[in-house]
Parts: sequence; C-alpha cells; structure tokens
Amino acid sequence: MTSTTEKIISSKRVYEGKIINLRVDTISFSGGSTVTREVVEYAGAVAIVPVNEKGEIILVKQFRHAVGKLLLEIPAGKLEPGEEPLESARRELLEETGYEAADLQRLISFFSTPGFTNEVLHLFLANRLTLKAQDLDDDESIDVVPVPFERAVGLIWKGEICDAKSIAGILAAYYLKNKQVRVY
Amino acid sequence: MTSTTEKIISSKRVYEGKIINLRVDTISFSGGSTVTREVVEYAGAVAIVPVNEKGEIILVKQFRHAVGKLLLEIPAGKLEPGEEPLESARRELLEETGYEAADLQRLISFFSTPGFTNEVLHLFLANRLTLKAQDLDDDESIDVVPVPFERAVGLIWKGEICDAKSIAGILAAYYLKNKQVRVY
Repeated sequence: MTSTTEKIISSKRVYEGKIINLRVDTISFSGGSTVTREVVEYAGAVAIVPVNEKGEIILVKQFRHAVGKLLLEIPAGKLEPGEEPLESARRELLEETGYEAADLQRLISFFSTPGFTNEVLHLFLANRLTLKAQDLDDDESIDVVPVPFERAVGLIWKGEICDAKSIAGILAAYYLKNKQVRVY
Repeated sequence: MTSTTEKIISSKRVYEGKIINLRVDTISFSGGSTVTREVVEYAGAVAIVPVNEKGEIILVKQFRHAVGKLLLEIPAGKLEPGEEPLESARRELLEETGYEAADLQRLISFFSTPGFTNEVLHLFLANRLTLKAQDLDDDESIDVVPVPFERAVGLIWKGEICDAKSIAGILAAYYLKNKQVRVY
C-alpha cells in the first residue's frame, strides 16, 4: 500500500549555493523505521519549443559543464525571483535565441527528476516568431540551431537530442501538431 | 559562437551522500573570466515503459519526498555498482511492479537535467510480461497502477503524470507504437 505517512524528524541544510541548495532530511515511517533523504532545492524553470513559420524548431547548442558535453536542447532557463512562468519564458526565449514570440502557449509543467530534486519545469510552445537580438549572460555561450520538426524527432532517436525536457517538449509538441488535443 | 574552451581551475567535493554527491568547480573561460558551477553527481538510472497484453502501461505510484507528493510514474531506479542498464531494467521492473519481461528493448538514453547534474537515464520498452512478485526495499512503498496507453497520454496533458522521464518515456513509446521507426 502506498505510504503517505512519512514524518520529517529533522532537516539539515548542508549547502547553500548559487543555483542550488542541498538539504538532508531524516524521516520516520509509520512502521517505526527511519531513513535519510537528500533533496536538491532548485528554483523553478521554464522550457520553450519555439516553432518558426517554416516549421523548424529553434534549438540551442551549448556546453553543459555538469555532463561535460555540447548539448542540443530546447531553450530553457531559471525563473527569476518573483517572475511568472510566462514572463520568464518570453525573457529566456529572447535572451537565448533572439526571438520574440507573439503566441506563447503554456503546455504542461513537470518535475525534472523527483527522486532527489524539487525542480519544476514549465513548458511552453512558441509561435509567430520575430527575430530581435540574443542577449546572453557573461558565462553563457549559445549557438542557435533551427531544425525541421520531423528531423528534431529523428535526432531524439539518434541520441543527438538527449536531455529529458527537450525530449518531453519536442514529443509533446509533435503530438499536439498531429492530434487534436485539448490543452489545459 | 559555442564555447568549448572551459578549463577547470579547481574542484571541491562539498558533500558525499547516500545517493548523491555535490561538487563545486571553478572554471575559467578563454576570455579570462571565471565562474563556479555546482554539479550534483548521481549514478546512472534506468526507466521502463512496461506494456501488458491488454495494451496497458504498468505505472507505479509512490510518495516522492523531494517534491512532497504522490506521483504516478513509469518504473525506474538507480544502477547498482557494476550493473549493466539491461540487467538493471530487468531487476527494477521486477522489484517495483512484480513483472518479468520476456522482451526488453532499449530505446534511448538521456540526461535528466544537465544544468546541474550528470544523471543519465536509460529508457527501455518492456513487452511480454509475466506476473511474479514485487520485491521492495524497506524504505519503498509502491502501488502498481495499470493504465490504458491512450489514457496514460491523456494523463500527461492533465498534469497527473508529471515527471520528465515518464513524459518522455510514454510519448516515445507512443510515437513508436504509431509509426514505423527504426530504433537504434
């Protein structure tokens, strides 16, 4: 049976950082046993599937230090304090790709990896794009890569698009494109 | 232009834990600037989309401490030291759901959230299931929930399936089911 009877006995913040904090909680179950759970605390984030008038998805290529690789991803970024997801999606899309979207539609929100972090991603579909100018942070270096929609799906199967939010985002947008689906 | 000229100046392990470690790297760019990057180190994991003879996906429902919620997900778990992904997928599927799969096909591998962790997930499709017995760890409590395939896709749009690997996994399996796609 599913247990919802976890009780937090103690909680210790072991690290406070620039983009993440780390907390270790000690938990007791109704049966009497105790365990520790490590939780990476992270502000929410947004991710955007931007589609231009040619039916291309605007992807971004950047070096990801945590995995030591250049990755091809959908644009994404962290919510600023107090920022609404829609506002954040508009800002991140413009900063990372240089595009403004006249049509920005919220699709779904999801946890990135709920086994150890509370990170939530809010996914948007962006249409009616107008090119303005990229505006990167000092420590960002991003190439903008337009890829035809069907080819982007193919790149998932080839392992060239290989992060969870990009795969979920592209396949969700692909599903929408090919089905009449009510978006909540 | 994409920078691949990051150079690690120093690296400090600030936490060693049960399932994660945390490292803070200081990095210099070719332009001379330096930044720090926080990296959550996590062993690889597997996730499985198990489909029974009725066309139902076998989902699991469990309380996720990091997000404070009961989540409905595809079965998944951490690789044991030295374990191959295929072996791990077979073991986790049996432990979490009680099912053995005569047909276990590797689909894709992806990073869960490459902005701050090196976690990799290997995704499998499981068919020809036989019910044996669930075998949970002491601190695990999991309900097995079979859901018709189309309904599982609907639950993504309703936000009731709301973690990245489950969304990516179910939509990837749905795509395969509806297209003739060469799987690599």
